Parts: sequence; C-alpha cells; structure tokens
Amino acid sequence: MTEGLRLTLTALPGIPLIQDGSDLVSITWEGLARASISLRDGDVLVFAQKIVSKAEGRRVALSQVTPSPRAMALASYADKDPRFVEVVLRESREVLRVRPGLLVVEHRLGFVCANAGVDRSNVGPHGDEEWVLLLPEDPDGSCERLRSAIQATIGARVGVIINDSHGRAWRNGTVGVAVGVAGLPAVQDMRGHPDLFDYTLQITQIGAADELAAAASLLMGQADEGTPVIHARGFPYPLREGRLPELLRPREFDAFR
Amino acid sequence: MTEGLRLTLTALPGIPLIQDGSDLVSITWEGLARASISLRDGDVLVFAQKIVSKAEGRRVALSQVTPSPRAMALASYADKDPRFVEVVLRESREVLRVRPGLLVVEHRLGFVCANAGVDRSNVGPHGDEEWVLLLPEDPDGSCERLRSAIQATIGARVGVIINDSHGRAWRNGTVGVAVGVAGLPAVQDMRGHPDLFDYTLQITQIGAADELAAAASLLMGQADEGTPVIHARGFPYPLREGRLPELLRPREFDAFR
Repeated sequence: MTEGLRLTLTALPGIPLIQDGSDLVSITWEGLARASISLRDGDVLVFAQKIVSKAEGRRVALSQVTPSPRAMALASYADKDPRFVEVVLRESREVLRVRPGLLVVEHRLGFVCANAGVDRSNVGPHGDEEWVLLLPEDPDGSCERLRSAIQATIGARVGVIINDSHGRAWRNGTVGVAVGVAGLPAVQDMRGHPDLFDYTLQITQIGAADELAAAASLLMGQADEGTPVIHARGFPYPLREGRLPELLRPREFDAFR
Repeated sequence: MTEGLRLTLTALPGIPLIQDGSDLVSITWEGLARASISLRDGDVLVFAQKIVSKAEGRRVALSQVTPSPRAMALASYADKDPRFVEVVLRESREVLRVRPGLLVVEHRLGFVCANAGVDRSNVGPHGDEEWVLLLPEDPDGSCERLRSAIQATIGARVGVIINDSHGRAWRNGTVGVAVGVAGLPAVQDMRGHPDLFDYTLQITQIGAADELAAAASLLMGQADEGTPVIHARGFPYPLREGRLPELLRPREFDAFR
C-alpha cells in the first residue's frame, strides 16, 4: 500500500457545554483521551468561536444595552433588534452595508462579516433573559494561550485555530474561516515556486488556515454545540508563527468596500 | 475507544499528468487502488479543475486569439496580456472590477472570480507557444458524468466536486471552492433546526460543498499537479442531488456588486 498524503479531522467526543470560566485545555485533554488521540508535533486543534467566547465570559444581556440613536436608525432599516445592533456597532469599526435583514461591518479586529460575529443562537439557557455572544476580545491571544498551555503540558508543538462561520459576498451558504490563529501559517506564501513547467505561479498565496477552518466547520455543524473542538492531523505545511492579520486584506487593496 | 465523528481526506497517489482525452475515471480507479481505498456509499471525490479542463481539451493557444478593442483597453488598465483578457471576456458575463493586476468578473456560469478562472500556470509544455486553460464547459455536467461512470462501474453512490482556488473580497489568500457539484448537497439547509436551547438558528445555510472543496484544496497544494484527486470519507450530510447554482447568490441579493 502506498499511502497518499492524508488529512484526518476528528470531532472530539463528549465535550461538555461550555460556561464562563470553563477550562478549555482540560476539556480538550479529556476529549482527546476519549478519541484515543495522542497529540503530535504538527497537529492542529480547531475551536469553535462560540465555546472560546463562552469560556471567556463574552456574553452580554440585551436588557443591559441602551441603543444609541444611530443603532436605532440602522435597526429600523435592517429590521433587527436595536439593542442587538448597538452591540454590533460597539464591536465594529465601520458599517459596510445595511439592507433589510443584513448588516455587514468591518469588525474591530479587521475582518468583514455580518453582525460583527455577534451571535444570538445557542448562547444558553438563562430564564427569560436574552443574551448575545461576542467574539473573544483577542482571538489570536486566545489561540496563543491555548497553544502554550498545550505545549507546556505535553511538549507537542501544535497549531491552534479559532473558527467561525461567515457568509460570502457572492455565494450562498456560510463557510468556516479562521478568526484567530497561533502556531501555523495563516497564509502560505507560494511566491517564487515555479510550477511543473517552470511557469511562475500566478496564485501566490494560499489561505491555509481558512481552508482548515472550513474543513473543521464541516464536522462541527451548526445546530448544536456537541462537537466544537476538532483535531486535525496532516496539515500539509510546516508550522510557524502565524497570525490572523496575515489573512486580512489591507484596506487600500480592497476593491469591494 | 469512543471514535469521534471523523473526516478523512486522502490525496490519491501516482496520478499521471493529464492530457486532452485522458480518462479520469480509470485514472481515479488506479489512484484509489494505489491508496488501498475501496469506495463506499457516501464518499466524495474532489477533482482539481485543472485536470478536468485538461482532460476536456479546454486549452487555448494565445497565438490564436485576436483581442477586441475592449480587451485591449481593459488589458492596458489591468496590466495584462490583451489576448489573455480577450479569453477572460469570452468566458464572462460581466466585468465587476478592474484595477492594475486585478480583473474580477462574473463567470458565464454565474460565480464571481478573478480572470474568469482562466489559468496560465501549469498548462503544460508546448514548445514556445503560450497556452491558457479555461474552466470546463459545464462543470456540473462533468461531475455528473464522473459520478455516473463510478456508480455504473462499482455501484457505490458517491458525490463528486470539481474545485478551484478563488480569492476573496476582503481576505488574503485563495481558498478552494466548488465550481461543479454532483450527488451531494452544495448547500445544506438548516432552516428550522432549533439549536440546543431551542432558539431558531440565524445561520440557516451551510456551504457544505465549498467547505469540502477547501479541505481538499489544502491537500492539493498549488505548485504542482501531483495530487489533483482527493478522496473524502466522512462527509457529514446525507447525499442527495445537488448542483452548483445552489451556491450562487442571486443578483438581486448581491450587496457588493
């Protein structure tokens, strides 16, 4: 048997519901043990944004939010809850598009997405109160802390991604993308690699962390929180320091704002 | 051992260079045999657009192309070969953006991408002549033919995707996306699925074929043609008839054109 290049993603079983203060590192150990996976150098762990945000206490009670006049105006046009829009604006640098049912912004971290990634579904049972969930304060930092804790515990040099589901400008359906990265190339630069026939490649950069985030997202699903941690073995590029900003197009090169 | 939900992608080894008229079905059989993979119902095969285009003879010699005045004007502004731009325009419905080094169009099949997917790299050695490669004439049809031939030969009900690497409006790096689909949901509709806490999901559609296309792209790399066929086991949604148009946002819902 000639084994081909292989990428294996495993949804860690038995991850419990995550709450404010949950220890994601120990929860990950337990999930890896349940799946009989021993971490190796070069493995990557992908965490759903939702559980990182919950563990970091990024819930906001809408009852505590007073919408600004701007939030009220946008909410009226977008047909959304003004308190929700207020939270979105606080998480945003700029509003790019607003249409009925649609609010696309540049998140304060620099990426473009709907609702600044603020999420209403699956935030958890809290009586009658309505809660929303923000992205982690500093997702790259969250990844780095997870990566360091893992390396300190067992010595394996792994990569860590936090992913979320984003819509696209011209395609239906959400796909997983990286919103935080540590320890792997977010973008793999292929510039200067000649192809098989020595024609220098036109496509020069691969969104490697986004491709792995999308693969992990397939296994996470959307309808529940049952599989929010994915182990990946076989990421084909050498690990290195890597950060989310590699994936963010500078404003001056943005042709679609 | 409690095995978690698992997705395994294998780059089929030993796929030869593909030429006009190559039989992708028998090449796939041989690659599967080399990897000791027996196809099962529910498996998905992902083919790089480049090899499908080559097998279908979609090469164009630039020496045979006479650029129109419009192509010459666009080429001058975009800083591209006028003959290349002429080929791009013939493959396009509409030019969305042109900047130095950038030409974003709506492809005649309905998706938005740079250069209408027309590729200059890795087209093959043909002396001094310059060639470019167009997308398959009908990628969904190409997928369907591959799917049917596989099912007729061994009876396994599989899905087939043709993928390509596309840039994104606001993110650096290309990611794999589906440009042709047969036998699997291109978009998985989650509308009406309540989440764990019975809050009806806001995110309602998952770009499942694009997520798998991205995962496969990670294994294909870009710099050569060595691994252009990927076998995937563990696609988490039930197979059904599915088509590329599911993934294409109707123009009237496009906020970024």
